[in-house]
Amino acid sequence: MQVLVLGAGQLARMMALESAPLDIEIRAYDVRSHTVVHPLTWADYGQSLEQGLAEADVVTAEFEHIPPDILKVAEASQKFLPGAEAIRIGGDRRLEKQLLDRCGVANAQHQVVANKDDLIQAAKTIGLPLILKSALDGYDGKGQWRIKTEEDIEASWPEIEDFLANSRSDQAIVAEQWIPFDREVSLVGVRDKSGNTACYALTQNHHYQGILILSLAPVDSEGLQEQAFDAFNRIADEMNYVGVLAIEFFDVQGKLLVNELAPRVHNSGHWTQQGAVCSQFQNHIRAVCGLPLGSTETLQRTAMINIIGCDDLPGDLLEQPNLHLHWYGKEKRPGRKMGHINICSDHLDATVIEVAEMLPGEDFPGLLEALSE
Amino acid sequence: MQVLVLGAGQLARMMALESAPLDIEIRAYDVRSHTVVHPLTWADYGQSLEQGLAEADVVTAEFEHIPPDILKVAEASQKFLPGAEAIRIGGDRRLEKQLLDRCGVANAQHQVVANKDDLIQAAKTIGLPLILKSALDGYDGKGQWRIKTEEDIEASWPEIEDFLANSRSDQAIVAEQWIPFDREVSLVGVRDKSGNTACYALTQNHHYQGILILSLAPVDSEGLQEQAFDAFNRIADEMNYVGVLAIEFFDVQGKLLVNELAPRVHNSGHWTQQGAVCSQFQNHIRAVCGLPLGSTETLQRTAMINIIGCDDLPGDLLEQPNLHLHWYGKEKRPGRKMGHINICSDHLDATVIEVAEMLPGEDFPGLLEALSE
Repeated sequence: MQVLVLGAGQLARMMALESAPLDIEIRAYDVRSHTVVHPLTWADYGQSLEQGLAEADVVTAEFEHIPPDILKVAEASQKFLPGAEAIRIGGDRRLEKQLLDRCGVANAQHQVVANKDDLIQAAKTIGLPLILKSALDGYDGKGQWRIKTEEDIEASWPEIEDFLANSRSDQAIVAEQWIPFDREVSLVGVRDKSGNTACYALTQNHHYQGILILSLAPVDSEGLQEQAFDAFNRIADEMNYVGVLAIEFFDVQGKLLVNELAPRVHNSGHWTQQGAVCSQFQNHIRAVCGLPLGSTETLQRTAMINIIGCDDLPGDLLEQPNLHLHWYGKEKRPGRKMGHINICSDHLDATVIEVAEMLPGEDFPGLLEALSE
Repeated sequence: MQVLVLGAGQLARMMALESAPLDIEIRAYDVRSHTVVHPLTWADYGQSLEQGLAEADVVTAEFEHIPPDILKVAEASQKFLPGAEAIRIGGDRRLEKQLLDRCGVANAQHQVVANKDDLIQAAKTIGLPLILKSALDGYDGKGQWRIKTEEDIEASWPEIEDFLANSRSDQAIVAEQWIPFDREVSLVGVRDKSGNTACYALTQNHHYQGILILSLAPVDSEGLQEQAFDAFNRIADEMNYVGVLAIEFFDVQGKLLVNELAPRVHNSGHWTQQGAVCSQFQNHIRAVCGLPLGSTETLQRTAMINIIGCDDLPGDLLEQPNLHLHWYGKEKRPGRKMGHINICSDHLDATVIEVAEMLPGEDFPGLLEALSE
C-alpha cells in the first residue's frame, strides 16, 4: 500500500518510519517545491501532484495550512483522509469555532472582527482582555495580538490592519475572550472508518514564546481525561473524521475549554513513540489505511522536549538510560524544530530536570522554568 | 553520519529505521548485485563498493557469509566494525570453535574432518551420535548431517563428499558431539569501542526444520543469565569486538554450552524492538558509531514469531492490542523470512497461544507444538 502525505516535514518522516513495518510506503508532496519525495531520503520521484495522487492508495496531510488549490486537487482524488473539509476547519479559526459551537464543546467566547468598529464592539460584548488571532495561517503563536485595555485597540489596530492588507483576501481576525487558564493540556486521539475512537492519555504542555517546548504525559486526572475524550468524540464524530486528531485545551480549574484543533498527528503526541503501545504516527496510518486501530494505552510515563534551532547536543546525553533522541534530519535554522527528546521514567519530573540541566540553556530557553512551575 | 552495511536484507532495513532518529544514514551494499542501495526504498545510489566505502563514516555487516574479496576491500577501508576477523570467525565454524576454546567457553567437543577416515576417528574419539556441520556457509540448518550409528557414516559419506566437492576449496566439515539439550537459548549483547558491554535478557528459541520460528524473552533464570553474560564478555573481549554479537547456547540441565556465534544483530533479538528500552538495531549502530550504548533493560515480556514464506495474515491480527507487525517488504518465496510479529504481554504464554491460533497453521508449521512444549 502507498500513502501520499501532503507536506514533507518531520511528521511525514515519522509516519514513514512507523509505517515501514506495516509494509506501507509513504511518499510526501512538498507543497513549496511541488515535488513528490521520499520523506526520509528526500529522493525526488519526479512526479507531479496529480501523478502522486494517482499512484497512491490513500492521501493524507501532515499540516493544515495547505494552499486551497492543492487541497482541491487532493479532494478530487477521493482518497483523501481526514479530507479537505477537516483540513480547512483546522486551518481556519472561524470554521473551527463554528464546529466547536455546533457540537456543543466548551471554548472561549469569540467574535470575528473585520474592522476597528467590530473590535470595539467585541471588547464590549466579550469583555477585556481579548486575544486576537488570525483566522488563517496562524501557528506557533504567529498572528496573535493581546488587547488588555481600550488603549490597546487604538495602539494595535494599525498593525492588525497592515497584517490583513498583506494577507490572503479570505483572511480575518477572530477576537477571543482571554482565558485565565491554570495550564494547557492536549488530547491526541484517533478515529477509524467505522467510527471507532481511541485516545492517548492527556498531556500537559509548556510553551515558550508561543512554541511548544515540553510535553508531560499522562496528566493524572480521570475527570479531565473523560471531559477531553467526550470533546474528542463529539468533534471527531461531527466531522466524520478518519485519522489522528489533536485537541488543545485550557484547563480552567478542572474544566476544559478547547483552544484549538489540529487535524493531524501533533507535536504534543510525539511522546507516544516511546510512551504508548502504538504511536500516533502508526495509528494515523492505520486509520487512514482502514487497518484496525492500535492500542493507545500508556506504556511508560514520558516527557517530550523539543529541540529548536539547535543541531548539536552534549555527547553524553545518550548515556541517559531512558532517553530517546529523535532528529528530523533538517538543516539548522533559528526557531526551526530540529528534533525532540523523549524521556521515560517512573519518576518523570526528577529525571526530566536531570536531563534539562544537561542541555545548553541558551538553546532551551524557558525549559527549566517550565519544569519548576 | 553515514554507515554502509554489507548486506541489503531486513537487518540493514531495521538498522535504517532505528538509526534515522539519531540522524544516522544507512546505506546497504548488496553483495549479489554489487550495488549500493537504500535499505528501505532500494533506490540505487549508482556507487561501486569502493565509492560506498569511501563515502561512509563507518562500515558494518548484516551477515557473516560475505565473499572474501568483499571482506578484504571492506577491511582495507579501516572503517569496518566489528571487523573482518569477527566476520570470518562467525562465518567459519573452525575459527569459531578455536575462539571458544581459546577463551575457555564451554562448547560441544569437536573435530575437523576432511575425509571418511577422519570421520570414523571422530566417532571413536568424541562418541556417537555426532552432528556434522559445514565449516562455511552453514545457516538455518543447511549443510548439516546427523550421524547416529556407524552405518550412518557409510550411508552419509557420499553425500558429504559430494557437498565438499561442490563447495569452495576452503570448505570443511566439523564433527561435533551431539548434545542432548533441554532447550536452546540465545544472548544478544553489545560492546562499545571502550570495551563496555551490555546484554539483553536471555531468550528461549524454538526452531522448525532448522529455522527459528519463535523466541520468548526473558528466560527467567539469573544463573543462566550470568553464565551467558560471562561467556559474552570472554568472547567479545577476546575479539576486541565492537557492535552487537549474538550467542546461541544449548541449555543442558542448567549449564550453557555455546552452539554458535553471529557477529551481528540476530533474529532472536528482534523482540528487543518492543521488549527492551533500546533495540539491538539502534544499539549496534550506536556501538559502531562510537555513541554511548543504549539500555538493554527489558521493558515488557515479549515473544517474536517469524513469518516465513507467507505475505498475507488475517486482517484482524492487528486488533490484538499488544501485537506489533514487522514486514520486511520482500517478495514472497518459499522458506523466505518475510517479517516477524512481536507480542508483548505479562501473560506471555497465554497471549502467544491466542495469537498463534489466529495464524494459518500451514504457514506456521511447528508453532503450536513449540508453544505446548
